[in-house]
Amino acid sequence: MELVDSLLKGDRRALAKAITLVENGDAEVPMILSAIYPKLGRAYMVGITGPPGAGKSTLADKIIGLWRAQKYSVGAVLIDPSSPFSGGAILGDRIRMQQHALDEGVYIRSLGSRGSHGGLSRATRQVVQLMDGVGMERILIETVGVGQTELDVMDVADTTVVIMGPESGDTIQTMKAGLMEIADIFVVNKADREGASRMAAEIRAMLELKERNGEEWRPPVLSCQANASVGVEEVNGAISSHRSFLEEHDLREAHRRGLRRHELMELLARYFREKMMDSANNGALETFFNRVEKMEISPYEAADLIFQSNLLKNLLNPQLTK
Amino acid sequence: MELVDSLLKGDRRALAKAITLVENGDAEVPMILSAIYPKLGRAYMVGITGPPGAGKSTLADKIIGLWRAQKYSVGAVLIDPSSPFSGGAILGDRIRMQQHALDEGVYIRSLGSRGSHGGLSRATRQVVQLMDGVGMERILIETVGVGQTELDVMDVADTTVVIMGPESGDTIQTMKAGLMEIADIFVVNKADREGASRMAAEIRAMLELKERNGEEWRPPVLSCQANASVGVEEVNGAISSHRSFLEEHDLREAHRRGLRRHELMELLARYFREKMMDSANNGALETFFNRVEKMEISPYEAADLIFQSNLLKNLLNPQLTK
Repeated sequence: MELVDSLLKGDRRALAKAITLVENGDAEVPMILSAIYPKLGRAYMVGITGPPGAGKSTLADKIIGLWRAQKYSVGAVLIDPSSPFSGGAILGDRIRMQQHALDEGVYIRSLGSRGSHGGLSRATRQVVQLMDGVGMERILIETVGVGQTELDVMDVADTTVVIMGPESGDTIQTMKAGLMEIADIFVVNKADREGASRMAAEIRAMLELKERNGEEWRPPVLSCQANASVGVEEVNGAISSHRSFLEEHDLREAHRRGLRRHELMELLARYFREKMMDSANNGALETFFNRVEKMEISPYEAADLIFQSNLLKNLLNPQLTK
Repeated sequence: MELVDSLLKGDRRALAKAITLVENGDAEVPMILSAIYPKLGRAYMVGITGPPGAGKSTLADKIIGLWRAQKYSVGAVLIDPSSPFSGGAILGDRIRMQQHALDEGVYIRSLGSRGSHGGLSRATRQVVQLMDGVGMERILIETVGVGQTELDVMDVADTTVVIMGPESGDTIQTMKAGLMEIADIFVVNKADREGASRMAAEIRAMLELKERNGEEWRPPVLSCQANASVGVEEVNGAISSHRSFLEEHDLREAHRRGLRRHELMELLARYFREKMMDSANNGALETFFNRVEKMEISPYEAADLIFQSNLLKNLLNPQLTK
């Protein structure tokens, strides 16, 4: 297929087109991703998350700048929880990212999380696969660290950076939002402001509480002033250190094996659901849905009866259903 | 079963125990919910959501007080995004709710959203079913209006109240977070503060932009000072008006039919996934998972091959798999 060829040649317009297909849940997406699949696994994925106002976009912008200075091609996926799911193309680049807009070596795309209903992780995974497939060497994923759907997106990252500002509220609150567990690197931004060093000390104290064996990565706590580019190189250095650590311990490949397994599981569950939807619209399952709607039986009884019957078997058998 | 009998007698300790089973994903939950299923559909479900700091808990507290004055038994589910999923029992009631703690007619339970990975909606649905089953007449669900997982919880509510404070930030931002679409009633809290009337006017202006046919509910925009109990009766009155509207137009039953259908679909997908998990650990599917892990084939190819094979059919057939 033409689009796949263009993707594998690194064509940006093909990438834009393919991402739009992902956003629309187009039926061609599996074929496209399957075709580029052997090329995947080359890009290094970095996630940046943290509470609203912590300076995620500024840090992301500066990190992209450093990567570009090293001549890496860069893809960036910005998750925008406040925008409709498929608004990526309309939203376009965020304002602070616009300095990169004319740089051919950077491709930035926004993805909205609204309306995704669990599809955001999948869409993000597919978009970074497309970027990986066209040969982007570094991929940055930025998302706000509020809400489970938004945090789940970070599963795809090799290295996750959690950034906080001294005024972004109680450290403990931030930690409780689940950021503690996913951070490979902590960054306290706006290091010139009051409370920054206290926040860094608090995070270090909380990290001390966690038991780790000698082999485990110990997340560093860095300070920076992203908007003045102070400390950003150190953040990038910590990303490189974490990458080396993962590779030395074969953890990067282990992580990716886990993602692949997860992806197959998700696909099987989704295909199953789609087959059920088809059948529910015009088939034998509909009787059960109707009885459940009318409260004649509970969904639990109906599910048991369906699994005990031949209905799903027939549904899954292409010969019998046709 | 004893627990079911106690639940149907309205026993609070049985309710507490059953909720803990839901939180732990206990295997007995389907049986319990199935047994109480014929009793469901009596409670009226009200959701309260909005940005952090808007005054959700205060309003919830006052609404519960009004319902208690009307002698309704009340259940409340407080979703706490900052706490671990199964920490409900440890968290206990929130501080502002403690005035109701000694009231036998009120049952309050916190549910954490962390670690739920899509299970929060299910857990909430099951907890409100238990509360409905024991005979609670009014059920209040409170969740922060940030993040898709947290908002999805509101699907269960008959009436959704969105509360905002004049300082809770840009109205447009709040609206963009998806609250506009789910609100049946808007409440501007802290009505004595600067910006409150402007905010109410902005919301009304945004509502005007939405086209509605003559039959559709038009969300009212109310003002209140929840902590001083000012305007809370009007909010409760609007809830009653919305309920009457739903019932006159047969929309409440339609909503519940949709929930029941959704629930059966979720159950079938979950059972399917569990069966796959079993098989993936010790069966024929594992070969495919291994090949995908090693990147020998893409997950898409593997899923197609699995669906074309007899693997899933055998998996779903209890006779053949045993």
